[in-house]
Amino acid sequence: MLIHYPNGKPYRPKSNEIPKIKHTGIKREKDVSFSNRGKTLEDEINETNSYYLNHQIAIIHKKPVPVQIVKVEYPSRSAAVIREAYFRTPSTTDYNGVWNGYYIDFEAKETESKTSFPLKNVHQHQVTHMEMVTNQKGIAFTIVRFSSLDRYFVVPFSVLQEAWTVMENGGRKSIPLTIFESKAYEIQPGYNPRIDYLSAIEKIIVNEEER
Amino acid sequence: MLIHYPNGKPYRPKSNEIPKIKHTGIKREKDVSFSNRGKTLEDEINETNSYYLNHQIAIIHKKPVPVQIVKVEYPSRSAAVIREAYFRTPSTTDYNGVWNGYYIDFEAKETESKTSFPLKNVHQHQVTHMEMVTNQKGIAFTIVRFSSLDRYFVVPFSVLQEAWTVMENGGRKSIPLTIFESKAYEIQPGYNPRIDYLSAIEKIIVNEEER
Repeated sequence: MLIHYPNGKPYRPKSNEIPKIKHTGIKREKDVSFSNRGKTLEDEINETNSYYLNHQIAIIHKKPVPVQIVKVEYPSRSAAVIREAYFRTPSTTDYNGVWNGYYIDFEAKETESKTSFPLKNVHQHQVTHMEMVTNQKGIAFTIVRFSSLDRYFVVPFSVLQEAWTVMENGGRKSIPLTIFESKAYEIQPGYNPRIDYLSAIEKIIVNEEER
Repeated sequence: MLIHYPNGKPYRPKSNEIPKIKHTGIKREKDVSFSNRGKTLEDEINETNSYYLNHQIAIIHKKPVPVQIVKVEYPSRSAAVIREAYFRTPSTTDYNGVWNGYYIDFEAKETESKTSFPLKNVHQHQVTHMEMVTNQKGIAFTIVRFSSLDRYFVVPFSVLQEAWTVMENGGRKSIPLTIFESKAYEIQPGYNPRIDYLSAIEKIIVNEEER
């Protein structure tokens, strides 16, 4: 779906264009590039979550990486040191929290592809988790960055689920960009908040309620 | 507050009594003790969350312990080993998730005291986090186990907050058991689910809505 601005016009960005829209009252200068400048999507989302937290907009955190701790040393007069630990497979998505009474749950994914999002970036446990969250009336989605295009999309779980089911039945193993343009919610990256994904969630909720 | 059973009678357990109530259809034998048998409260809550998950009742997970990973070794033909890492201070509570559209967020605490719950078990960051969650219309609470008494309570955040404020103003540094009995929700430990805290949350929600 397109993002519509208050004048009712859809906004269709071109990949190299510097957006000129105002955001949270901060006017963009033409000479300032808001491209991701080598930041990972995770960095950008952490910045966004800090903004939401500091402005009391939402309480959303990245979950720590799960590790199995085997050996810890306690050197005198200094902090405990973990000397042997192993990575464990997470059973959830990376981010969750609460916003205005809504349970928010999502995963963040990047692709260098300019034409489609490969589903090999998504794991079965994430799909299962998001399905269960949806059944419990939580809001589950994926934030996808097409890094080469500098474009960001909020993908409702229903869209991912449909593509996943097609793949499981032997069909296409990726989601084409055109599906993102028609069924996901594009976000214009900004200064602060960097990736204002809650504005897209607001639209998803309105659309769900209209059904 | 007291827990009322369907016959309308309040149930007041004595510490050494083996409860005879039925739970999830499994009848308790008199010779079976449901005391915690050396399990930690964390074990009991993890068991409960697994039950909720497997029965599609709620999707609630313990957050992994946050660690700062400094050095990782990649031995050939085996899993990566973390060789240097440090514990970080969490900025949230330990458990969160979604239940029937509600955002659930809590901390679990044990005390050996038979008369009161010392507030030194609670950290400022947890109180701050639960306050923010409450402002976002999430449901924040603490599960407290009086281990010596084998009694469990769900403490709404409002009760903790009040005691915390009193302490900050130089007052009492603990919450007496009598406050738990009058303002918190007692849970009877069971076989499966072990600590059915969502039944207490249901009561909290009903009481909040009645106000």
